[in-house]
Amino acid sequence: MIRVAVIGAAGRMGQTACQAVEAVDDMTLVARLDADDAIDADHLCGADVAVEFTIPAHTEANVHALLDAGVAPVVGTTGWDDAALERVREHACASGVNALIAPNFAISAVLVMEFARQAARYFTSAEVIEMHHPNKLDAPSGTAAQTAQLIAQARRDAGAAPMPDATQMDPDGCRGGMVAGVPVHAVRLAGLNAHEEVLFGNTGEQLVLRSDCFDRSSFMPGVLAAVRAVRNRPGLTHGLAPVLGLEH
Amino acid sequence: MIRVAVIGAAGRMGQTACQAVEAVDDMTLVARLDADDAIDADHLCGADVAVEFTIPAHTEANVHALLDAGVAPVVGTTGWDDAALERVREHACASGVNALIAPNFAISAVLVMEFARQAARYFTSAEVIEMHHPNKLDAPSGTAAQTAQLIAQARRDAGAAPMPDATQMDPDGCRGGMVAGVPVHAVRLAGLNAHEEVLFGNTGEQLVLRSDCFDRSSFMPGVLAAVRAVRNRPGLTHGLAPVLGLEH
Amino acid sequence: MIRVAVIGAAGRMGQTACQAVEAVDDMTLVARLDADDAIDADHLCGADVAVEFTIPAHTEANVHALLDAGVAPVVGTTGWDDAALERVREHACASGVNALIAPNFAISAVLVMEFARQAARYFTSAEVIEMHHPNKLDAPSGTAAQTAQLIAQARRDAGAAPMPDATQMDPDGCRGGMVAGVPVHAVRLAGLNAHEEVLFGNTGEQLVLRSDCFDRSSFMPGVLAAVRAVRNRPGLTHGLAPVLGLEH
Amino acid sequence: MIRVAVIGAAGRMGQTACQAVEAVDDMTLVARLDADDAIDADHLCGADVAVEFTIPAHTEANVHALLDAGVAPVVGTTGWDDAALERVREHACASGVNALIAPNFAISAVLVMEFARQAARYFTSAEVIEMHHPNKLDAPSGTAAQTAQLIAQARRDAGAAPMPDATQMDPDGCRGGMVAGVPVHAVRLAGLNAHEEVLFGNTGEQLVLRSDCFDRSSFMPGVLAAVRAVRNRPGLTHGLAPVLGLEH
Repeated sequence: MIRVAVIGAAGRMGQTACQAVEAVDDMTLVARLDADDAIDADHLCGADVAVEFTIPAHTEANVHALLDAGVAPVVGTTGWDDAALERVREHACASGVNALIAPNFAISAVLVMEFARQAARYFTSAEVIEMHHPNKLDAPSGTAAQTAQLIAQARRDAGAAPMPDATQMDPDGCRGGMVAGVPVHAVRLAGLNAHEEVLFGNTGEQLVLRSDCFDRSSFMPGVLAAVRAVRNRPGLTHGLAPVLGLEH
Repeated sequence: MIRVAVIGAAGRMGQTACQAVEAVDDMTLVARLDADDAIDADHLCGADVAVEFTIPAHTEANVHALLDAGVAPVVGTTGWDDAALERVREHACASGVNALIAPNFAISAVLVMEFARQAARYFTSAEVIEMHHPNKLDAPSGTAAQTAQLIAQARRDAGAAPMPDATQMDPDGCRGGMVAGVPVHAVRLAGLNAHEEVLFGNTGEQLVLRSDCFDRSSFMPGVLAAVRAVRNRPGLTHGLAPVLGLEH
Repeated sequence: MIRVAVIGAAGRMGQTACQAVEAVDDMTLVARLDADDAIDADHLCGADVAVEFTIPAHTEANVHALLDAGVAPVVGTTGWDDAALERVREHACASGVNALIAPNFAISAVLVMEFARQAARYFTSAEVIEMHHPNKLDAPSGTAAQTAQLIAQARRDAGAAPMPDATQMDPDGCRGGMVAGVPVHAVRLAGLNAHEEVLFGNTGEQLVLRSDCFDRSSFMPGVLAAVRAVRNRPGLTHGLAPVLGLEH
Repeated sequence: MIRVAVIGAAGRMGQTACQAVEAVDDMTLVARLDADDAIDADHLCGADVAVEFTIPAHTEANVHALLDAGVAPVVGTTGWDDAALERVREHACASGVNALIAPNFAISAVLVMEFARQAARYFTSAEVIEMHHPNKLDAPSGTAAQTAQLIAQARRDAGAAPMPDATQMDPDGCRGGMVAGVPVHAVRLAGLNAHEEVLFGNTGEQLVLRSDCFDRSSFMPGVLAAVRAVRNRPGLTHGLAPVLGLEH
C-alpha cells in the first residue's frame, strides 16, 4: 500500500488527484495539503509519495521541501526550466529521495510526443497544431513546444534537409510560430479542453498523430502510474515516457 | 450544345479543363488559346463561353477582350480585387455579355465557405486552418481569407460578442494571423494539395467543416456547372455559390 | 419572463436544464417535477413551457398531459416514431397549445444534419460515422439515422445515381449498416461522448462535416432557444432547425 | 549501384516503380518484365534485386522463380497467407537469396501499424476505420486487418480486459466487423485513395493515428528503402518496419 499526500488538494487538479488515489486499491490517501499548510512531517502524515499540483510560483519550493522531508514528489505543475530541473536532480541524488516531474500526464499526449519523435526522421515536412480552451494564458502549450523540440532534435540527428516552404507573402502571420524550426499553430476555441495534432508529410502521403484530452480525468492514469513508479527510479525522472516503458 | 474556348489551354488547369469539356455531351471544345494567341473572333472560333485559367497579370485584360468579342468568360484565375471586379461588372452590364469569376471551383470548398457563413452566428468562437503543398507562394489562401471574411460579416450581422481569448504570452506568433478578426492558420506540408478546416466552438461542443481538394480534377464539376449557368445570369456572377443554387 | 417547468428534474439532463434556465434573465424556473409527480396544474405552478427530459416509456404520456394542462412541451427524450409524432401534432392543433420535439438539441449536431441535407445532391458518395461512449445501448444513434435519411431524401429529390461500391468480399461486415441506402458506421470508445462525422466524396475532393458534443452542456443553448420559440410556432415543431432560422 | 528489375513493369504500380528507380543515383533499371516474359537469367539482365508488383494469382510463382535465378525479390503484391510466406522463407534460407514481402510500402501506413502496436496496451478501447476509393473489391483492407491483429496481440500480451461495449440493439450492423476482437469499419468514397485511422480511448482522452496515402507515389520511398536493405537481411523479411529501423 503506497501512502500518498496531495499538495494543492483544494485545487481542481488536486481534488481530482485525491479522488483518483482513493479509487484504487494499492494506495491510501494520508494527507491533503493546501496553500497555507507547511510541508513538513507533521502535515505529511508519513506519506511515501506526494502528488504536487499547485502553481508555478510555489512548485519548486514545495518540491525541495518534500525532498527534505523524505517524501518522493510527483509533480504536474508547469513552468519548470532546465536550471530548476537541474537543482531538483542534484537535491534528489544527494538526498536519496526520488522525484518525477512531467509536463503532461495524459497518456495520449505522452504517446503523441513519443511517436512524433520516432516518426520525424521519415518525413519531409512536420507541423504542430495545438488547440485549447480560450482561457489559456500562454501560446503555444508546453506540450506543443516540447513536441516541436523533439521533432527538431530527431531531424537533426538524422541529418534531415530543411523543410520545403516557398512562402513569400504572409502579411498577417498565418504561417504560425517557429519553435526549434518547426511551425507551431495555436487555436483557442470555446468548448475545447486540450488537444494536439502533429502533421507529417512526404510526397503522396500524410501521417497525423492526435491527442484529445477532454477533461482532467485524462491525467489520472498517468499520475497513478508515476506514483507507483517513482520510488524505483533513482534521482529525477523527467516526463512520463520512461514510466510507461516507452524509453528506447 | 455549348461551344467552349479555353484560354490558357497549355497550362495545367487549362489542360484539365479541355479534357473536362471534351468528356461531357452538352459541350464542344472549339478553341484552345495560349499565351501568344490574340483573343479575337478569329481565334475564338464562335465560342459561346470561354474558360479562363491564366495568370493574375493577364486575366483582367483577357476578360475584357472576351466581353468585347461577345464571349462569356468563366474565370478561375486568382488575384481579383474589388475595383477590378467592379470594372468587369460594368463592362458586362454595358455589353450585355455575362461573366463569372470564382476564387475556387471545388464544390467542397464552396460549400465549406457557404456553411461557415450560415453557422457563424451560432458559435462563440471560430478559427480557420488552411493546409497546402509547400510550393504555394502566399499565405493565407484566397479561399481561407474569404472564409474568414464571411464569418466576420455573419458575426457582425448577428451582433456577436468578440471571441474569448485570454492569451497574454505568444512570443513566437503561434496564434495565427487575424483576417477580419478571425484567426487564420496556414500549414505547408509535402504531400498535401489544397485543404481547409473551419472550427466553431460553444461551451461543450465543436463544429468542424473540412474541404479536401486532392487534385485539379476537383475543380472541373464546378467549372462545367459555371459554363452551363453563365449565359443565364445577367452581368457579373462572383463566386460559385449562386450557380450551385445555394444563394439565399 | 417565461415561466418554465422541468419534467424529469432529478435526471442528469433535467438537472442541467434546471441550471440553464436559472442562469438566464428571461426565464424563471417555477417547477421541478420528477417520476412520482402528477403532471397537472397543481404541480406545474403556472408554467408557460415545460422542458421534458425523461425516458422513452413515459415521454408520450407526459406530452399529452402537458398539452391538456395548457403548457407547451419542449421535448428532448428520444424514441418518437412517426405515429406518435402525428398524435402530438393533432393534439397540439386541437388544443391550441404548441409543442416542440427534437432528437438532438446540440447546435453543432443540428447544423451537421442541415448541412448534410444541403450538400447531399452535389456528391457521388456519402457515408456517416457516429462515435459515442461505450455505455450506449443502441446503434446507430438517432441523430446518425436521421442524417442518413436526410441524405437519402436529398439524393432522391435530385435524381442522384446510386453510390459506387465495388465491394465483393466483406466477410466480417466491415462496410457498416445501410440506413436508407447510406452506409452508417458506429464507433464505441471510452473517453468519447457523442460525435458524428459525415463524409461526402467526388472525384478529387472530399467534404467532411463533424459535430463533437463533449458533454450535456452542449444541449442547453438549443433547449433555451426552443423554450423561447415554442409559443410562437403553432402546432408541432419537429427538430431544432426551424428554431435556429435554418428552414428553407 | 544496385541493378534493379521490375516485374509487372507495365502495370500502374510497376510503371511508378520504374520511374522511382530511374530517379535515384544509387540504382540502375536493368530490366522491365511483364506478364508474358519468362523470369529467367535472359530476361533479368543481371539484376541484383527485383521489384514485384503483379497480381495475387502470379506473385508466389514469380518470387520462387526469382529466388531460383539468384535475384532478391521485393514484393508489394497482396494476397500472401502464412503458408505461402513460410514457403518463401524456406526457399530463401535454402538458396541464400534474400526476400522482402510487405503488405504496404507507404511509410505513414507502416508507422500507424507500428504505433498502434505500441499504444494498444495503454487504452481501454480501440477501433480501426479504413477509407478507400469505391473500386476496391475487398473489405477490410489488408493493412486494416493487420492493424487490428497487432492491436489484439498487444492487448493479449498485456493482459488487457475486454473492451467495454453495451450495445444491445444494432439491427443494421453499424458496429462494424470484428477482426481479432477489434471493431473495423470500412468506408468507400469517391475521391479517396487509401486512408486509415486508428482510435484509442481512455476515460477523458483519445489518441488518433491516421495515415493518408493520396496516390501511388507514396509507396516509392518505402520500395527504394526495401531495395537498398534486402541484400543485407538474410532470409525473408516480412513488412517494412524492420527496414525502417523500427523493430524492437
